[in-house]
Amino acid sequence: MTATPAYDLLEARFRKMNAISEALSVLSWDMATMMPEGAAEPRAEQVATLKGINHELLTAPDLEPLLDQAATEALDPWRTANLREMRRDWIHASALPADLVDALARAESACEMVWRQARPAADFKQVLPALKLLLGLVRDVGQIKAERLGVSIYDALLDQYEPLGRAAEIDPVFDHLEGFLPGFIGEVLDAQASRPPFLDLSGPFPVERQKALGIRMMEVLGFDFRHGRLDVSHHPFCGGYPGDIRVTTRYNEDDFASAFMGVLHETGHALYEFGLPSGHWRPQPVGRARGMVVHESQSLLMEMQACRSREFAGFVAPLLRDSFGVGGAAWEPDNLYRRGIRVKRGFIRVEADEVTYPAHVIIRYRLEKALIEGRMELDDLPAAWNEGYGRLLGITPPDDRVGCLQDIHWFGGAWGYFPTYTLGAMTAAQLFDAAGKADADVAPGIGRGDFKPLLAWLRANIHSKGSLLSTSDLLTQATGRPLDPAVFEAHLRRRYLG
Amino acid sequence: MTATPAYDLLEARFRKMNAISEALSVLSWDMATMMPEGAAEPRAEQVATLKGINHELLTAPDLEPLLDQAATEALDPWRTANLREMRRDWIHASALPADLVDALARAESACEMVWRQARPAADFKQVLPALKLLLGLVRDVGQIKAERLGVSIYDALLDQYEPLGRAAEIDPVFDHLEGFLPGFIGEVLDAQASRPPFLDLSGPFPVERQKALGIRMMEVLGFDFRHGRLDVSHHPFCGGYPGDIRVTTRYNEDDFASAFMGVLHETGHALYEFGLPSGHWRPQPVGRARGMVVHESQSLLMEMQACRSREFAGFVAPLLRDSFGVGGAAWEPDNLYRRGIRVKRGFIRVEADEVTYPAHVIIRYRLEKALIEGRMELDDLPAAWNEGYGRLLGITPPDDRVGCLQDIHWFGGAWGYFPTYTLGAMTAAQLFDAAGKADADVAPGIGRGDFKPLLAWLRANIHSKGSLLSTSDLLTQATGRPLDPAVFEAHLRRRYLG
Repeated sequence: MTATPAYDLLEARFRKMNAISEALSVLSWDMATMMPEGAAEPRAEQVATLKGINHELLTAPDLEPLLDQAATEALDPWRTANLREMRRDWIHASALPADLVDALARAESACEMVWRQARPAADFKQVLPALKLLLGLVRDVGQIKAERLGVSIYDALLDQYEPLGRAAEIDPVFDHLEGFLPGFIGEVLDAQASRPPFLDLSGPFPVERQKALGIRMMEVLGFDFRHGRLDVSHHPFCGGYPGDIRVTTRYNEDDFASAFMGVLHETGHALYEFGLPSGHWRPQPVGRARGMVVHESQSLLMEMQACRSREFAGFVAPLLRDSFGVGGAAWEPDNLYRRGIRVKRGFIRVEADEVTYPAHVIIRYRLEKALIEGRMELDDLPAAWNEGYGRLLGITPPDDRVGCLQDIHWFGGAWGYFPTYTLGAMTAAQLFDAAGKADADVAPGIGRGDFKPLLAWLRANIHSKGSLLSTSDLLTQATGRPLDPAVFEAHLRRRYLG
Repeated sequence: MTATPAYDLLEARFRKMNAISEALSVLSWDMATMMPEGAAEPRAEQVATLKGINHELLTAPDLEPLLDQAATEALDPWRTANLREMRRDWIHASALPADLVDALARAESACEMVWRQARPAADFKQVLPALKLLLGLVRDVGQIKAERLGVSIYDALLDQYEPLGRAAEIDPVFDHLEGFLPGFIGEVLDAQASRPPFLDLSGPFPVERQKALGIRMMEVLGFDFRHGRLDVSHHPFCGGYPGDIRVTTRYNEDDFASAFMGVLHETGHALYEFGLPSGHWRPQPVGRARGMVVHESQSLLMEMQACRSREFAGFVAPLLRDSFGVGGAAWEPDNLYRRGIRVKRGFIRVEADEVTYPAHVIIRYRLEKALIEGRMELDDLPAAWNEGYGRLLGITPPDDRVGCLQDIHWFGGAWGYFPTYTLGAMTAAQLFDAAGKADADVAPGIGRGDFKPLLAWLRANIHSKGSLLSTSDLLTQATGRPLDPAVFEAHLRRRYLG
């Protein structure tokens, strides 16, 4: 007899669901990298079947009594956290009536389809009816989950991507950024203009050499190829699961930097997954990554903090010269470093640099929150969008294609996702700062291509914690304080005005 | 309201099981081709979980009443056959008590592990205790299934691989072969010795060129790359499912023929899968391939009947010369043809040619049947094995490594499988003969690299039938008579003594 019979039954149940989720992630990777073009139909049925089985398991009638019973059992901190994550999974899966889930899926797919036409045509009005229908359903979802979770409607949607994330913690942080960014961007652009221009890095850069270099860089960062792969897909991602991580990229023979920086970014995600709790906790909810903010912090820590540093430019310059058989001043560390941190005002979020990116996110966050809370109508979105770009970035999109139609998120049903990008960037800065203070060899290590000091600190303080703590508690334990925008600001000032 | 409510419920159930089986086949392909070496453990759990779910679905308590109820409903021939296949699946899944299934799995895995040591050591005694335990359990399985299926114990095991296959139909066919093979092999070897020796085909043959050639050959045979791939694995196979066929091979830079002939063989399997019933019947049991005999007939028809013909040698000779930049008499059609049909007595089944292969199979069939039926003891296996090789092939294995320890089948629990190889080869000969009689352009087409006449006949007469008929009825409908060893004998005489 066990002392925690209900809890133990739940562990077995969630272990089974995890195995199915892992199978789904193999199917999903295969679909993006290997599956022949004509095979979409049976694959869609396989995926729907496995998702359906997981949904049945997670909404089985005996799950709630088991969760309630387990809560009365004597559980240690890891088990307590595991039970909290199980309940959160269960609430998100069971909160919604089946007809709402169906209607939402249909509205998402319909709206995304119209958006694919409306975006190139810069025609917001075309997608407006489908988007109104979708937003109405998203608000219904938020309302129902808000009641079940005991939070606001926006927080309920945010919780789907960032567990325990709260707008009340985001607002002051974004207020701080919004206060200094517009002026700061001007200062950075002035400083940049006062320096000599960068030199171009001209190719071609053969795919095979880019791939070999990418694999070498992944190994330098700590990627374990006994438990992972690098392949090609149209949209790069980091998939799989801790025992088998599948990173993808996409090569451009005229520009090595896109795949190169993309691989470093995805490797940051991969290292987080590799470092999650192993053994007993691996297949349990508490063994999973904490949420989108911490995940994005790990990719941005590698890409933006570590690999756009002067130290890294010094390490990588000779490798690039060897890999591509190039040379000259353009391939010296200083030019590589300055190219890697150039700043430019632009309309497109996914092309934005580290300095202007938060402005793109803050605009979207303010707008989606107002729309979700009913303080604004979708008809007014394009005007409000353009007003935001004028205020924060000093530019006005010429049309909605490069304005409010540019991102798939809202049109595919992902509301409450955007803030995680910038929260991730700020968290990355705070973690990198703390790692450097805890171990003085972190930055010099990067200069030697030795990422072990950095990785050791991340493993101990972030990766190995899984979902034991909230993001906020995790950050506080690791760095001594919750998310502090001053650290991110200091990082930007040092790098761009220092 | 439907007129066949129970039957319709069963279709939905089996459609779900099929989606899970397809997911399993993607996992299995990935494991053999893509999965990093360290990822075996979570993959094993995914596979066990999905197999467990399918087993639960297939042995659900309401399945038997549904099968019984559906049998009283008015079903057309396809639905009637589908219901027959459903019941067969259900019997095989539900016949055995859970503790026997567990014991069998453990015994299989334990015996295979000892065999991996015993084979290189040529030490049959080492594996004898584990094999005795395993055979005892296999006989228990056979006994239970025999009662459920109303057949003999050997037929019950055979039925797992070859539905509705019966030893009573195999025995006279194998008797016929055994009657003429020993003398015939001698005649063939004499005839071969009287001709000038073959010329060697010397390499190296770069992997990339072998791969390009393999893909070209697959296209020539009719493989649709919008619904399939060619990759590399240690053991070549044809996996996936009709919408997404995954063929693999293994390249040797010193010998292009192994991968080349292997690809042709697997493409025969693939073309069968591609041609199975589409639409409504695709995910149903009646839409599946008929069994191992027909499947093997399709691969051997392509490899042995079509692609070792004089016509094919004439077509392929210039392609080989172009692909590998070679020339001379060795690469002329006549030398390629004669190399492709050389005959040699040997101990090893998997290295055997078309003429001696049936002897290897007949020896195994007689022995496994006697062991299953309790007419022989495992202690006597090595002596009986060697006696068989002496009688049928005129050679005596020097040890058990190249004798009764060479094949994994029995040691991994596959009893009743061996006869399907030679039944497949004979079926291939009979089908190829009938196709050529039905369409005089089949052989000339092969000579032009045009496989459409052959494939059209196979599609219409074999592939599109799925599991509608028994193998015997399928062959009779397609060729006018059940399996006739005289057709295979005539093929061998024509090719090797003609």
